Amino acid sequence: MIIRQIHVTPVAFRDPPLLNAAGVHEPWALRTIVEIVTDEGISGLGETYGDLGHLTKVRECAQVLLGLDVHATNEMYARVSATVGDVVTDLHGLTGVATKEKSVDRVFSPFEVACLDIRGKAAGVPVVDLLGGRVRDAVPYSAYLFYKWAAHPGADPDRFGPALDEAGLVAQAALLIKEYGFSSIKLKGGVLPPDQEIAGIRALHAAFPGIPLRLDPNAAWTVETSIRVGRELDGALQYLEDPTPGISGMAEVAAAVPMPLATNMCVVTPEHLPPAISARAIGVLLLDHHYWGGLVRSAHIATVCGTFGLDLSMHSNSHLGISLAAMTHLAAATPNLTFACDTHTPWQDGQDVVLPGSLRFTDGAVPVPAGPGLGVELDRDALAIMNEQYETCGVRARDDTTYMRRFEPTFSTRRPRW
Amino acid sequence: MIIRQIHVTPVAFRDPPLLNAAGVHEPWALRTIVEIVTDEGISGLGETYGDLGHLTKVRECAQVLLGLDVHATNEMYARVSATVGDVVTDLHGLTGVATKEKSVDRVFSPFEVACLDIRGKAAGVPVVDLLGGRVRDAVPYSAYLFYKWAAHPGADPDRFGPALDEAGLVAQAALLIKEYGFSSIKLKGGVLPPDQEIAGIRALHAAFPGIPLRLDPNAAWTVETSIRVGRELDGALQYLEDPTPGISGMAEVAAAVPMPLATNMCVVTPEHLPPAISARAIGVLLLDHHYWGGLVRSAHIATVCGTFGLDLSMHSNSHLGISLAAMTHLAAATPNLTFACDTHTPWQDGQDVVLPGSLRFTDGAVPVPAGPGLGVELDRDALAIMNEQYETCGVRARDDTTYMRRFEPTFSTRRPRW
Repeated sequence: MIIRQIHVTPVAFRDPPLLNAAGVHEPWALRTIVEIVTDEGISGLGETYGDLGHLTKVRECAQVLLGLDVHATNEMYARVSATVGDVVTDLHGLTGVATKEKSVDRVFSPFEVACLDIRGKAAGVPVVDLLGGRVRDAVPYSAYLFYKWAAHPGADPDRFGPALDEAGLVAQAALLIKEYGFSSIKLKGGVLPPDQEIAGIRALHAAFPGIPLRLDPNAAWTVETSIRVGRELDGALQYLEDPTPGISGMAEVAAAVPMPLATNMCVVTPEHLPPAISARAIGVLLLDHHYWGGLVRSAHIATVCGTFGLDLSMHSNSHLGISLAAMTHLAAATPNLTFACDTHTPWQDGQDVVLPGSLRFTDGAVPVPAGPGLGVELDRDALAIMNEQYETCGVRARDDTTYMRRFEPTFSTRRPRW
Repeated sequence: MIIRQIHVTPVAFRDPPLLNAAGVHEPWALRTIVEIVTDEGISGLGETYGDLGHLTKVRECAQVLLGLDVHATNEMYARVSATVGDVVTDLHGLTGVATKEKSVDRVFSPFEVACLDIRGKAAGVPVVDLLGGRVRDAVPYSAYLFYKWAAHPGADPDRFGPALDEAGLVAQAALLIKEYGFSSIKLKGGVLPPDQEIAGIRALHAAFPGIPLRLDPNAAWTVETSIRVGRELDGALQYLEDPTPGISGMAEVAAAVPMPLATNMCVVTPEHLPPAISARAIGVLLLDHHYWGGLVRSAHIATVCGTFGLDLSMHSNSHLGISLAAMTHLAAATPNLTFACDTHTPWQDGQDVVLPGSLRFTDGAVPVPAGPGLGVELDRDALAIMNEQYETCGVRARDDTTYMRRFEPTFSTRRPRW
């Protein structure tokens, strides 16, 4: 099965004003859709970031992969590595340090996923079966709460409403749980002063007793603040995610707080695992196949984590249905991925590049798509519309900070900030 | 592709009197051949140890795997684990400590390999392509030298001749290199007092300058002896394999000798990796898919090793062509498996359960079999003959020590011995 065509299509979709330590989500979120077509006419899908520097590298790499067999992932990786070269494409700073290895893994990922989609279709099996077969029939996701404005400035309010205090958070959680059935909750923190976020978690803990809670301030806190918050939230948090920057800082916090620390920032490529493990900096790794080099490499990293006693959850950025399918297949095949995964799906609010029907949430979990491959089919009309949105929206790289400073000129991205 | 039949066939083949720290190879070596047949009539092959305790577990597990899809390896592993239970089947002591995990991995392996064979055949691709695709077209193996007698007592001499001194070793190496083209050499040590084995390595170093040499005494030495031998062989050894028992002993030696230490004894399951890495006990892991849970799990372990800076080679016990094919596919797909692999193939001296033609040595390397799946085909006549040999040979478990004591009643297996 030889790769004959690779279509790389940037898309944009509407995104609510979600707040984080870097600023606020712009009105348009970007993604890149990769479609590979083989000599036999089988096509496979991948999805990745839409930032222009990254998109450019994806397009360059698409050229050098033509003619390869869809199984030749080692050779694909070598070619992507040679093509990406020493260029380090950074994204928005919320997925941790940028390295050459991570840049390669990130560019490689959508091609690998698309090839697995093709291999699954050819074999008549879902991608989960190419990863060892399902250990769970449905993958639990968490309600991913954000502090948010009621609307993008100058625009109409979105249906999610404002969330700038405890009442707003509880209302948001209630809405997401009502619509999706989630049975765990993650709050994106690093937005308000720590005591307000402590109050937010306590309000959620009181409103949803027994539901596991997580808090992720994106390394916005000092070691001292992290330790104080961690201790104050003893009994309320399932894990605390990236309270402070860097492996050594995380290790200091980990030694002093009662709950495990999770990360998708201080450990983002294999080279970070030995020092993080040696320092006992983390208890949970948030896998993300978009920057851990695709599904098979992520499965290998899961084994590394299992070998060293690290638990696993899954990280998410704004994404569409191709990624949700890929995340679900990976999580369903990974025995030690036992925490509910993150997803931004509710915030895309029905916008998608895949035809409806194959992905659904039942009791907060996504049943593994049944069809062969990823089990999702490209909605070519939606793709065209979303590509047109990309062409006209004016956003070319995610930049939460600049957008925020249009409204709060003194907004600080200093980390740690508190 | 549903598993409808699993045929488990023990076989025996003639084995020369090869000496090691546990004794001497018996006249018959045992293996178990696993053949899985799907509902579509596609069959796949696996090969594993032939010891009766292990064979019994393989047979029990074959019963519980019927009806599963060939992709459902996670479920297969769970069923094998439940069936093996807490029974720890030990083999001959030359592959390190026996644990429950290792017993499960060992029983699971031939089924996993057979399923990959089937999946490759169904997809029309070699197994290497199911493991990421080839990074090398042929896999280098090393000449695996043994101290040996000229013949089994009471039998005619074999064609390899005796090797009980330097001249015998050099002649044996010359023969294997002439016939196979090997360009690296491993000597099984732990047989003669260390100074004689030092002399053996020096003789090989002088006779084959520039050819990498390894020495494996199977943990027959104390820490002190290991350090002395290591230092005396500075410049002559590529790596020193399992000089002394246990991770802590290995770590002491590793810190004091100039060459890397390799192991297939002190690290034999994932649980051994963290303490071995923490103690800096080893520089090279000898992978062996027969006890690391098959090919995909071995590939995951290769990633663990790469993540922590460990190099890779491959371990071998007496084996036939199914295993040689599986080893070759795995090594060809593993970028960081850069040392020539071990193989006992020359000692099987043409005996095999696979039809000739698909496996050959060229300049000491085995080209990846081209056919789909493993690329080897069962020789049913040979299988029947070798099964008949199993039935009549009287050997039911490898026991080099008892056999040795028939001729040297005071033979000591104390380890460390020197």
